[in-house]
Amino acid sequence: MNPRFAGYEAKLHDSFDRQAMMTLLGARLSAVSPGEVEITAPVLDTTRQQHGYAHAAVSFALGDTAAGYAALSLMEEEDEVLTVEMKINLLSPATGTSLIAKGKVIRPGKRIVVVNAEVWAEAGGTSKQVALLQGTMIPVRA
Amino acid sequence: MNPRFAGYEAKLHDSFDRQAMMTLLGARLSAVSPGEVEITAPVLDTTRQQHGYAHAAVSFALGDTAAGYAALSLMEEEDEVLTVEMKINLLSPATGTSLIAKGKVIRPGKRIVVVNAEVWAEAGGTSKQVALLQGTMIPVRA
Amino acid sequence: MNPRFAGYEAKLHDSFDRQAMMTLLGARLSAVSPGEVEITAPVLDTTRQQHGYAHAAVSFALGDTAAGYAALSLMEEEDEVLTVEMKINLLSPATGTSLIAKGKVIRPGKRIVVVNAEVWAEAGGTSKQVALLQGTMIPVRA
Amino acid sequence: MNPRFAGYEAKLHDSFDRQAMMTLLGARLSAVSPGEVEITAPVLDTTRQQHGYAHAAVSFALGDTAAGYAALSLMEEEDEVLTVEMKINLLSPATGTSLIAKGKVIRPGKRIVVVNAEVWAEAGGTSKQVALLQGTMIPVRA
Repeated sequence: MNPRFAGYEAKLHDSFDRQAMMTLLGARLSAVSPGEVEITAPVLDTTRQQHGYAHAAVSFALGDTAAGYAALSLMEEEDEVLTVEMKINLLSPATGTSLIAKGKVIRPGKRIVVVNAEVWAEAGGTSKQVALLQGTMIPVRA
Repeated sequence: MNPRFAGYEAKLHDSFDRQAMMTLLGARLSAVSPGEVEITAPVLDTTRQQHGYAHAAVSFALGDTAAGYAALSLMEEEDEVLTVEMKINLLSPATGTSLIAKGKVIRPGKRIVVVNAEVWAEAGGTSKQVALLQGTMIPVRA
Repeated sequence: MNPRFAGYEAKLHDSFDRQAMMTLLGARLSAVSPGEVEITAPVLDTTRQQHGYAHAAVSFALGDTAAGYAALSLMEEEDEVLTVEMKINLLSPATGTSLIAKGKVIRPGKRIVVVNAEVWAEAGGTSKQVALLQGTMIPVRA
Repeated sequence: MNPRFAGYEAKLHDSFDRQAMMTLLGARLSAVSPGEVEITAPVLDTTRQQHGYAHAAVSFALGDTAAGYAALSLMEEEDEVLTVEMKINLLSPATGTSLIAKGKVIRPGKRIVVVNAEVWAEAGGTSKQVALLQGTMIPVRA
């Protein structure tokens, strides 16, 4: 998959840095390539649910955002990205010290971009998949 | 729909209060009845996305949690609730001053509980629906 | 919700009649109004799954089609409708003598139309809900 | 992934052969291994939608069934499989001469099995992906 213009990486980082939500989660864009984006975040005490695991909404936030930026990496320079819908299957409790979301474009398109994302939890040297997401992104202009 | 035991309301409030994530979002359980739960939260500067709206993950967090507690309100005393999967369609940007999530049990069951949730944004005297969620909850025991 | 032109009902019936799949299922458009469409079909021996119930794909076919035509009823005269994505939760085995799918527009829009559908099974004088669908439709032009 | 008993392949074929819906679609189990199942079917004139493509419900039927049997291939001998929910993103019109659905277990489990499926359309020597499905299966006993 090919980006539409050379500066797509800087555009993604600029946009990511404007997301207060990503700051709140301690998340960073850890890898960017055309059609694939990875976001890494620590498991924070402030975002746990009642059993002590990271809340499903954290996996959702990271997976949705990674998938959205994967879509944005293939859009035109003037485009922003919007989530139309997203579905998440939760595979395991999100334990561990950090979460890594890997977003990917399944089918690029001018009107509709189909994406998915995996979220993995890491602790020590081991990792396990905690969520699988599948959804739809669209380009929007200001 | 009938709760399984008298103390279901207290159980929901206890569980909700243990969710750091709900505290982080400033959310509170604003209405509880058998099979229906409402959660209200302010739109915070800390949870915005890059265009200044509340991040989709906030609507997800509130809708998923309202739906989960709607399911829990009909479960046995010893049960906790777990999200198996959740799908969200985003209908409008989440602007305004507060968000209200209304979770509802569509089909109760011993093994599988089907739920949905609406999320509404309020500003001044007006409100608009910003998200619709549909998903699956299961009971789990410690 | 308001249709865009007077002939929307005839347009829906014409389109429905061109669907070989609907003929195969014995389905008919049993009610059409702006933003809401109902399809009725018998439970056929030819579309059962291994336990003798109607296959999930029958509920999907009827619900998806009812939701799609509900969306089309609000589109411009030149538009056709396309399913972007659809999610189905199966609530009960599809037994009985006939299935009724009720599709509805949740949020109309020029680019994206959010829809849902309920599928009910009828036998004798009783009916029960067998499926709930939620999805996304878009207008397309030839 | 390991099957629970030696006869899982025969069990899948027996179950598949009892599905009238699969016969109606001209579908056959074209590959079976633990956690992965492939179903192949012709594009029939009887299952088209209004634009002449195979109806989305055909991709759904094949993908859901392939995913369900992938789940069943890892279950106990006494278990049958039931779809709890399934989400489909439609990537391209289902044209061509045949459709191939590849179902796969993403996360096995005693209570909940998470699956996905790809559906590909073939014409001449070329093939393209027409749908991506993600869903939840459970074991049930008679």
